[in-house]
Amino acid sequence: MSATHRVEQPVAWGDCDAAGVVFYPNYFRWFDAATHALLVSLGRPHRDLTARYDAIGLMLVDAQCSFTAPATFEDVLTIESTASALGARRVVVEHRITRGDTLICTGREVRVFARQTPEGVRAAPLPADLAALLGGPAITAPATDP
Amino acid sequence: MSATHRVEQPVAWGDCDAAGVVFYPNYFRWFDAATHALLVSLGRPHRDLTARYDAIGLMLVDAQCSFTAPATFEDVLTIESTASALGARRVVVEHRITRGDTLICTGREVRVFARQTPEGVRAAPLPADLAALLGGPAITAPATDP
Amino acid sequence: MSATHRVEQPVAWGDCDAAGVVFYPNYFRWFDAATHALLVSLGRPHRDLTARYDAIGLMLVDAQCSFTAPATFEDVLTIESTASALGARRVVVEHRITRGDTLICTGREVRVFARQTPEGVRAAPLPADLAALLGGPAITAPATDP
Amino acid sequence: MSATHRVEQPVAWGDCDAAGVVFYPNYFRWFDAATHALLVSLGRPHRDLTARYDAIGLMLVDAQCSFTAPATFEDVLTIESTASALGARRVVVEHRITRGDTLICTGREVRVFARQTPEGVRAAPLPADLAALLGGPAITAPATDP
Repeated sequence: MSATHRVEQPVAWGDCDAAGVVFYPNYFRWFDAATHALLVSLGRPHRDLTARYDAIGLMLVDAQCSFTAPATFEDVLTIESTASALGARRVVVEHRITRGDTLICTGREVRVFARQTPEGVRAAPLPADLAALLGGPAITAPATDP
Repeated sequence: MSATHRVEQPVAWGDCDAAGVVFYPNYFRWFDAATHALLVSLGRPHRDLTARYDAIGLMLVDAQCSFTAPATFEDVLTIESTASALGARRVVVEHRITRGDTLICTGREVRVFARQTPEGVRAAPLPADLAALLGGPAITAPATDP
Repeated sequence: MSATHRVEQPVAWGDCDAAGVVFYPNYFRWFDAATHALLVSLGRPHRDLTARYDAIGLMLVDAQCSFTAPATFEDVLTIESTASALGARRVVVEHRITRGDTLICTGREVRVFARQTPEGVRAAPLPADLAALLGGPAITAPATDP
Repeated sequence: MSATHRVEQPVAWGDCDAAGVVFYPNYFRWFDAATHALLVSLGRPHRDLTARYDAIGLMLVDAQCSFTAPATFEDVLTIESTASALGARRVVVEHRITRGDTLICTGREVRVFARQTPEGVRAAPLPADLAALLGGPAITAPATDP
């Protein structure tokens, strides 16, 4: 089980580069916004992570994207984001961007549940209710899960 | 009298739009960075405004730009920024962007010296040494200077 | 008479700066997108300007914004954009951004109807039907209208 | 063998998010600019790829970044970029961003040498001199190299 959310993302003139296609860092900007939208859909907006759990938030540790087809100005893209708890402390969000039936790109963010501690910012175990909302661990936590 | 600083700004591929010229909000991004660089050149980086003066910083209240010629990928632009105290609480920074002898645009930021107060963020008089570094009032403060 | 259009603009995490409020060049990014949306609402999307009128588009010559109140992450802003033909060759688009009853900022873009000519890009008279869609001249064209 | 280039990248106020650290898509923006700078250092700026080789350029097909430590406003980062030909048609650029002795992140872009063909944009073999400048294949091209 995992949590899924969809958002529509129109491509603005300023999102495109001189080749007339989306400048690729913007896909990561949309990934970040889509992750935030998914958290909102679960009833756990970012501000709630800080207020309810005394956490800093879901801090990014890795991001990746594979590009299949270009998108351009006036396209309306669909971003489907699927989150899963990944071990005790981590969440992975898989993103899939399409324009109608055309796959534009697929990517992934790995985030850790982060708390401020006297030693600095540290990864901490996901609260049980948040892990449950995310659908539970996607992968059994290894003994050495950081 | 006023304080002046110059920075070079290369134009990146991602700064340009589908027409192959700089997407205009980037000029304001560069204005903001040029203002920060000017403050550094005066020995008053942003962190100093907060630490030395217990201020929030120089908060933007107005920005404007007139565009004369386009700039494009691999251009190296020069941004010349000139600040002046404007009345008791405000600073105006005039920016002029050129590529060699070609004028690209001229613009202006108006900022207020802002402090956190029990009533919220409020404009406050510029500290005397900061006003002096900025070259003193460019325009006599009207009695009603906000 | 003039043409008006409204769009909603959610504020993303990445739109905010280290002070937790919208980094100001993003307002101009939203102005640009709002102008494009207004053209779409008039049945004249950007691609139509090039295809129907053999024009380059509505090229920006001046932009300005006055900031009244900050906006922050998870705010949903409303951008109301009003365009008017301004003389024979120019269009002015006034933008007003609000969050509920709170005014965030007001701004303005001045654009010229631009064509490629053997001498380079030049301002050209607005086609009659486009000027009519924009509601006609807001200001009588001076004899020297560029 | 491979081609390496270093650039310095100051962190601007507007590069940071509400947590006060660099908003992560900006790292990919810097990767893209660093790749362009590396091509310039090899005497093959982007415009040369199009003019000399009748190519579209080095089109991105995959990007990835692992984040180790945050960077913040007024940091000056070093981006070390190393390119290698990867099979007959692809180039991989490894990026390593540091602040003094602190590793901030490491990432990678995979790009294909792309040409416009009657069937659309297609990957094409790297010209011999460009492959040589890049230091030759880093990995033996598999028989099925696309």
